[in-house]
Amino acid sequence: MINELAYALGDNGCCIREIAEFGAKRAAEIGKDKVFNFTIGNPSLPTPPEVADAVKAILEDTDNLAIHSYTPAVGDGACRQAIADDLNHRFGTHISADELYITCGASPALAATFHALAFPNAEIVTIAPFFMEYRPFVESAGAKLVVVPADIPDFQINFEAVEQALNPNTAAIIVNSPNNPSGTVYTRQTLEKLADLLRRKAEEYGHPIYIVADEPYRELAYGVEVPFVPTIYKDTVVCYSYSKSLTLPGERIGYIYVPKAATDSKALYTAVCGGSRAIGHICAPSLWQKVITRCAHLRPDLTEYDRNRTLLYEGLTQMGYTVAKPDGAFYLFVQAPGGDSVAFARKAMELDLFIVPGDDFGCPEYFRMCYCVSHETIEKSLPLFRKLIEA
Amino acid sequence: MINELAYALGDNGCCIREIAEFGAKRAAEIGKDKVFNFTIGNPSLPTPPEVADAVKAILEDTDNLAIHSYTPAVGDGACRQAIADDLNHRFGTHISADELYITCGASPALAATFHALAFPNAEIVTIAPFFMEYRPFVESAGAKLVVVPADIPDFQINFEAVEQALNPNTAAIIVNSPNNPSGTVYTRQTLEKLADLLRRKAEEYGHPIYIVADEPYRELAYGVEVPFVPTIYKDTVVCYSYSKSLTLPGERIGYIYVPKAATDSKALYTAVCGGSRAIGHICAPSLWQKVITRCAHLRPDLTEYDRNRTLLYEGLTQMGYTVAKPDGAFYLFVQAPGGDSVAFARKAMELDLFIVPGDDFGCPEYFRMCYCVSHETIEKSLPLFRKLIEA
Repeated sequence: MINELAYALGDNGCCIREIAEFGAKRAAEIGKDKVFNFTIGNPSLPTPPEVADAVKAILEDTDNLAIHSYTPAVGDGACRQAIADDLNHRFGTHISADELYITCGASPALAATFHALAFPNAEIVTIAPFFMEYRPFVESAGAKLVVVPADIPDFQINFEAVEQALNPNTAAIIVNSPNNPSGTVYTRQTLEKLADLLRRKAEEYGHPIYIVADEPYRELAYGVEVPFVPTIYKDTVVCYSYSKSLTLPGERIGYIYVPKAATDSKALYTAVCGGSRAIGHICAPSLWQKVITRCAHLRPDLTEYDRNRTLLYEGLTQMGYTVAKPDGAFYLFVQAPGGDSVAFARKAMELDLFIVPGDDFGCPEYFRMCYCVSHETIEKSLPLFRKLIEA
Repeated sequence: MINELAYALGDNGCCIREIAEFGAKRAAEIGKDKVFNFTIGNPSLPTPPEVADAVKAILEDTDNLAIHSYTPAVGDGACRQAIADDLNHRFGTHISADELYITCGASPALAATFHALAFPNAEIVTIAPFFMEYRPFVESAGAKLVVVPADIPDFQINFEAVEQALNPNTAAIIVNSPNNPSGTVYTRQTLEKLADLLRRKAEEYGHPIYIVADEPYRELAYGVEVPFVPTIYKDTVVCYSYSKSLTLPGERIGYIYVPKAATDSKALYTAVCGGSRAIGHICAPSLWQKVITRCAHLRPDLTEYDRNRTLLYEGLTQMGYTVAKPDGAFYLFVQAPGGDSVAFARKAMELDLFIVPGDDFGCPEYFRMCYCVSHETIEKSLPLFRKLIEA
């Protein structure tokens, strides 16, 4: 007499974590240097020293009750203002603090947003490959996840397929760029074309189709533009996390931005508050809100990630692997020789090389690698990849 | 085209926060010393100095990536072990780390637990007066909240009313002791009688009826025993928070304990994992997990709360107010003279005295006061209460 859906979700855990944990177990058995674990997107850049400095300063200069007490559910005013200021400085926008809602990272931001959008029979569209947790978030909000096939090999957007997926029940489409797992960044042209399509369809259906811009990887782009989606399409809700940009994945701090220019903006923001309340949000960790107040302007130094990216991308393509253009995030999305990524991942595992098959991302012929590992791990793994493609 | 339920939840915010914010606004207008705000349960004890020491020590002695990286969703192993050790030390239990699941405080712990328990048509029973957020958590998990009337004036349990509320769809009953808002603590006798009733009914229905023990106030008791419910009734899931015991309400750290002795324990724990995944839980804040690893054994010094409690309780009863026996938490639950707590709260507001009417707690004739305020605030408020009861 328990909830079978919750049981299934718990039992059929995120496959990434399972492979990652198996890899960690192997590392404990045979030594870390003999295991090549490319599974989990735990940032490897050190957290900027300004973050620890900010924590220490807050502990010294702020009253202890003020540091740790509840903030409003929407977030501390100063934190929201610091984020608004930073966005305005970068994008020439005029965002105000009250368009922001501080969350425990991007995942509950998405869960709350999907709750807000889930009118009866609502559908939420995602474009493959996609972050597998969208499904439980969307379904537990009571909506239906509709998957648009991947645009292989470019990993931009197959507009015909998107158009086929849209219907009057479409509440939103998720845009995740830089993309997990493909590492591709949607170009301005791609986003403008998507905006045109959505505007046309919204008019046809008589209601907005929101873009939910899932942007934990916004700051991780290598020499390409990551357009700020709300400046291209007004009906956009941004879900952001500082997990990757400040290497704080475990600390759970991010935000939702509901632009006041969006259709029904005020009602949507209110529904986000309600959705957030339904999932047990009280406030984002208060110390981390205060850290963001002081550190929202920091950007990561991507030198290490870029060095890893170049070595891995060039190494694999030279061997004959087909790889999605890795312009952002810290993922490489690679076509499995033979086309079956599960079979390939199994063979790789025999060499103590751990990767994530693309099935759960909606792209079974590709596999994902995280290059947020040591440069040496990549160097030493390349001969194994050669062995695998030659087999 | 948004989710009307989410909108309603967001629009009809938690009334406590609304009155509290109005009180804060008045304080800004006329001066803090002229406003008597007893609305919000923000602990007023300073956070123990060991907590800031632990934060500083972790920043010095732990590798920066290890501090801030994702922990497993269930929580960091060392943190779970420290909590298990502390519980075992106090209650003579044999809890192991893998019966614990670390959460962002008690609210998402409850939300995940209700998700886990929500079989089709499941009902979850709560005893008035009750924490008003149970309703959105239970309902968004897809279950029905059934309210048992309060046992006035003792605020123990009306067993006849509980028995009437039980039926084959009953999945669980919430036990919140020390209680918010009444401040009462269920005696061992009360809990044993409840356990007997639930065992009898579970046998009759052929499935367990779980107790969900919501225990954020466990450490706040004044000279009375707070029995550890799982030692009285094995089918108990404990939801705990360090918000009040360590004065860390904004930091969002707590846990779920699913005893291995509970019926279908393993499946239930798995469903808790799934329920937690559905609400966007990734992990509890990793720095705070590491702090709890070092601080799980700390207990609050209740001298200040006790001093406030005594002054307020004695002051009000001497004036003729009827007050629930305040053995725990930091709340006083007071019968509104005239029996209409909304009308009384309105009159109090005219004197810049802010209290929370009991309607949303399921007890409209009582109002709640939080005495986690300065002693001086209580001293200066007493003449106003005299004025109100004499009017």
